Amino acid sequence: MSRNSGEDAIVEILRRRFAFRSDSLEKGIGDDCAVIRPRGAREKWAVTTDMMVEGVDFQSSWQSPSQLGWKALAVNLSDLASMGARPRYCTVSLAIPPDLTRTWIRRFYDGIEKLGEKFSCRVIGGDLSRSESGVQISITALGESSGHRMLYRAGGKSEDILYVTGKLGKAAAGLSLLLHGWKRGRTEGERRALRAFREPMPRCDAGLWLARSGLVGAMMDLSDGISMDLPRLCRAGGTGAEIYLSKLPGFPESSDWGCDPLALALHGGEDFELLFTVSGSNSSRLVETYPAALPPISRVGRLTANSRVVCREKEGGPAMPLPRKGFDHFRR
Amino acid sequence: MSRNSGEDAIVEILRRRFAFRSDSLEKGIGDDCAVIRPRGAREKWAVTTDMMVEGVDFQSSWQSPSQLGWKALAVNLSDLASMGARPRYCTVSLAIPPDLTRTWIRRFYDGIEKLGEKFSCRVIGGDLSRSESGVQISITALGESSGHRMLYRAGGKSEDILYVTGKLGKAAAGLSLLLHGWKRGRTEGERRALRAFREPMPRCDAGLWLARSGLVGAMMDLSDGISMDLPRLCRAGGTGAEIYLSKLPGFPESSDWGCDPLALALHGGEDFELLFTVSGSNSSRLVETYPAALPPISRVGRLTANSRVVCREKEGGPAMPLPRKGFDHFRR
Repeated sequence: MSRNSGEDAIVEILRRRFAFRSDSLEKGIGDDCAVIRPRGAREKWAVTTDMMVEGVDFQSSWQSPSQLGWKALAVNLSDLASMGARPRYCTVSLAIPPDLTRTWIRRFYDGIEKLGEKFSCRVIGGDLSRSESGVQISITALGESSGHRMLYRAGGKSEDILYVTGKLGKAAAGLSLLLHGWKRGRTEGERRALRAFREPMPRCDAGLWLARSGLVGAMMDLSDGISMDLPRLCRAGGTGAEIYLSKLPGFPESSDWGCDPLALALHGGEDFELLFTVSGSNSSRLVETYPAALPPISRVGRLTANSRVVCREKEGGPAMPLPRKGFDHFRR
Repeated sequence: MSRNSGEDAIVEILRRRFAFRSDSLEKGIGDDCAVIRPRGAREKWAVTTDMMVEGVDFQSSWQSPSQLGWKALAVNLSDLASMGARPRYCTVSLAIPPDLTRTWIRRFYDGIEKLGEKFSCRVIGGDLSRSESGVQISITALGESSGHRMLYRAGGKSEDILYVTGKLGKAAAGLSLLLHGWKRGRTEGERRALRAFREPMPRCDAGLWLARSGLVGAMMDLSDGISMDLPRLCRAGGTGAEIYLSKLPGFPESSDWGCDPLALALHGGEDFELLFTVSGSNSSRLVETYPAALPPISRVGRLTANSRVVCREKEGGPAMPLPRKGFDHFRR
């Protein structure tokens, strides 16, 4: 589910290997979704897939079956959101060990249905299998855009302003509670952190609004932390970037249980917020027109002409290299 | 990957739960693929997904990584073939244990690429994850039809003639060799059986021709053996059926290594041949026009007005109940 630098290298090999042009393929491997443009269709279709493996991507003790279903779909809907695609359909493949019951399966689908209904994303197929041990989930989601273009990781330009939705490091703060064995929140802050980790809300409405606004250059979702994900956006667009630590919208409540909110905002995974770029000249228009009902957006930095990704305490302050951390399945 | 009676019950629950109408969804859960009709598009798109779990659906000792990649894609292309859809794109999700190398991954994709090229099915995305143990694969494939309708499991009518492509029980004969630890074929028959199991050839060309011919009522692929799959086709269309054991195109070579070719033809899984129905009046036209370059077809029975599925030694002989056997993940 998370994809980091060792994995990036493998994905890059696959991207080159399967690179090709087709009249109906607008985007292949290497972005959050592939994009198909059926001949004669008004819409484009975005396709994304994510796998979640018990013991690697999650532990069964961390969430209920319903929360697991929710999250497995949310990860995919977040990919659609990052293109500005409207969710439509998904397929759900599930392998479960022999000790899990039909009730477990039903509850897992409860979670999928609950989130799916929020965004009109319907289950149209799937596969069901036994596993030898642990649960494995693979969901593929299809979304459409009609009347506006999809947004990609590429498309950012030097001097564009960088924005994020919501708060960063909240899901990692929830994970930190779970890793300490605290499965129930005692305070409102703890409950919000646990909810962010267990039932993340994909930013589909914000993504769609941003794509339709015509104001955005590049967009992606934050699944591995901004310190891992921002360099990907920069590589795709051939830019560098700087971010301002004082401007990062963190989750300060996590210091109550011993976390460093800034470290989690930089490196925490699974926030599923959107990271996007807007030109300086469009920036004030964005701020004026962005609907109050959508998750708040924060200006966190800008793209630069070189290829370095740095951070500064505040705009104009001394540049520091942006530390990279994160979980990598495939780094050796 | 295989889906049998206990699983059928769960799929039926999901089908009811996620049943809905949509202007762009022609078919949801319950057939070999879902079918989407994008607004304004000339084509319809078929979507299918299959999961393969090591230790349940396959053993690593049974095939090379390349053969595993081939087969994982073949299972999906066979679902597209059974609708008469032309393969176009796929996403590949792969979870592998820590001891597998990048070389393993590369070879796995070699197999996908090799089969994909035969049918112009291109990889457009995927996910890569570690597993705690064993390999898990989930592929979603997209195919299109343009200028002809898709074929479904429903659509057969009483008195329609039943046909199958190719030979039945060949893959099961290959599996039997592997279960005895014979990984290399000593005779041509053994090699063909092993190839049928390891690198099945999805019947995409035959499926497409049959869909375009306009002669076919219902179609599906044979993944769990005709004794499991024919009752599904009958349930979907509200008919019964009879098949003639003497007409089943078996793989007699398997008796050389102690198999019962008839039992394998009835109950053997993973042949990925097509099962389809043609009205009596279209039957001679089918036989006259079916191209010699495609896999041979055999007339194996007919649909009946009741809801029973029976077999007869030959047409007009006494009816016997069709025994059901097969592997079921979810029967309790």
